[in-house]
Amino acid sequence: MGRVTSRTPVLRIRGPVRTTRPDTVAAEEPLEIRLAGSPLAVTMRTPGADFDLVHGFLATEGVIAGIEDVAGLRYCNSVDDEGRNTYNVVDVDLAPGVEPPDTALDRNFLTSSSCGVCGKASIDAIRTRSRHDVAADPVRLDLATLLALPDRLRAAQEVFTKTGGLHAAGLFTADGELVALREDVGRHNAVDKVVGDAVRQGRVPLAGHVLMVSGRASFELTQKAAMAGIPVLAAVSAPSSLAVELAADAGITLVGFLRGDGCNVYTRSDRLVLED
Amino acid sequence: MGRVTSRTPVLRIRGPVRTTRPDTVAAEEPLEIRLAGSPLAVTMRTPGADFDLVHGFLATEGVIAGIEDVAGLRYCNSVDDEGRNTYNVVDVDLAPGVEPPDTALDRNFLTSSSCGVCGKASIDAIRTRSRHDVAADPVRLDLATLLALPDRLRAAQEVFTKTGGLHAAGLFTADGELVALREDVGRHNAVDKVVGDAVRQGRVPLAGHVLMVSGRASFELTQKAAMAGIPVLAAVSAPSSLAVELAADAGITLVGFLRGDGCNVYTRSDRLVLED
Repeated sequence: MGRVTSRTPVLRIRGPVRTTRPDTVAAEEPLEIRLAGSPLAVTMRTPGADFDLVHGFLATEGVIAGIEDVAGLRYCNSVDDEGRNTYNVVDVDLAPGVEPPDTALDRNFLTSSSCGVCGKASIDAIRTRSRHDVAADPVRLDLATLLALPDRLRAAQEVFTKTGGLHAAGLFTADGELVALREDVGRHNAVDKVVGDAVRQGRVPLAGHVLMVSGRASFELTQKAAMAGIPVLAAVSAPSSLAVELAADAGITLVGFLRGDGCNVYTRSDRLVLED
Repeated sequence: MGRVTSRTPVLRIRGPVRTTRPDTVAAEEPLEIRLAGSPLAVTMRTPGADFDLVHGFLATEGVIAGIEDVAGLRYCNSVDDEGRNTYNVVDVDLAPGVEPPDTALDRNFLTSSSCGVCGKASIDAIRTRSRHDVAADPVRLDLATLLALPDRLRAAQEVFTKTGGLHAAGLFTADGELVALREDVGRHNAVDKVVGDAVRQGRVPLAGHVLMVSGRASFELTQKAAMAGIPVLAAVSAPSSLAVELAADAGITLVGFLRGDGCNVYTRSDRLVLED
């Protein structure tokens, strides 16, 4: 579909030099996910790897356990006002016996009002819904391997180089081999695309793997790692308090500020092999 | 409430030096917004300035035009499992005659299925809902003033210095004076808090102002600028394609890569006074 980037004229100012020329920007378009024709969610994403995105979204939200829970999916015949298919609507048929969620997914961490809305309730909800015992994952990771991941992630980023405008998520083995990399204007979408690629190949839960993200580690990204069975989450930037709490609860090794020759390990540092 | 940051133990690795000590991380907690007791939306946010966040969210989603549309709001008596108020639920009473939205807000850019889901439909929806003619705003901005904004934003950031983990949004006058700055784990929340502060002071639409954000310029942030009547949006990083399209359609001056002695101006560069 070739819509990962688009061109737009720009006035470029660098000190005394001003030029007007076309510039490449990262494409952003809405994607609507439907279940058997009913709208489930809309996300603003970079077009491309949409079926990965849909599988990853459904898996990390707990709707499907694996590829066997999807009977089929396709782009709807959704057209713009010039009659062209927008490729912005994907309809999913779940396999027989797979229950669709009964509430809007963006509220799925709400528990009953008697409990209140709080971080602990959000974490409890993940514990209830996760199908994988990430805490028991025996994987161990050399510090040198961990420290090498940011450069490997950046080297594999194609679109960022062109636009400077995309989040990246990379899935690595414990030996530091890159399994998959996806880029998106939305950080959660980049992770969903990586996880969805694994779902479609029947490789979830992703025991023994490391998920590396280009930005911060939020609650939502940590939730996605837990739901996909990923034992190590590493971020270039800072984690939030609730990301740390969820990682501790789920038994995920959470690494932040992974850059240069250092990092911060917030939880489960026992998985790191520190001797040089 | 003192929950803007929290402390957590961390294994800190910097080359050969490894230390274990408490570290400060940015707090993240869910906030549920209710209208007359009915759940409207949940966002993961940094606690603090919650009433600003609620006002800004309602204004940039087009639910309210100004403070006069809010009859009252308060924290619900939502408690955690130890009986403490979580301060994570805010209930809003709209003024008589103000209609609550009839659909989930995160789907509000969907139009009828005959039109399809596409970027153009998303932009059309903003045009329909916006109450302000941003395109007609006659504000002009000296290039030197624009180039000085990132340093002013960073100088005013308090929590980022402690945690390295927050997005910032700053509202400036056309002379470069900082009107308000807010920080949040969510980029859209930081903008909502800045706009909400202005709503509560009766200063919306924000004609003649500049909104500066610490990250990228997405469709969603450009939408919020348009809905708040802000004619200039400046970002430290890249814009997306749909942000550029919306800015062009709404008549917003969109500036990206604002750093050092340069920037990229994507739309309405006529508002910039370039002569040195």
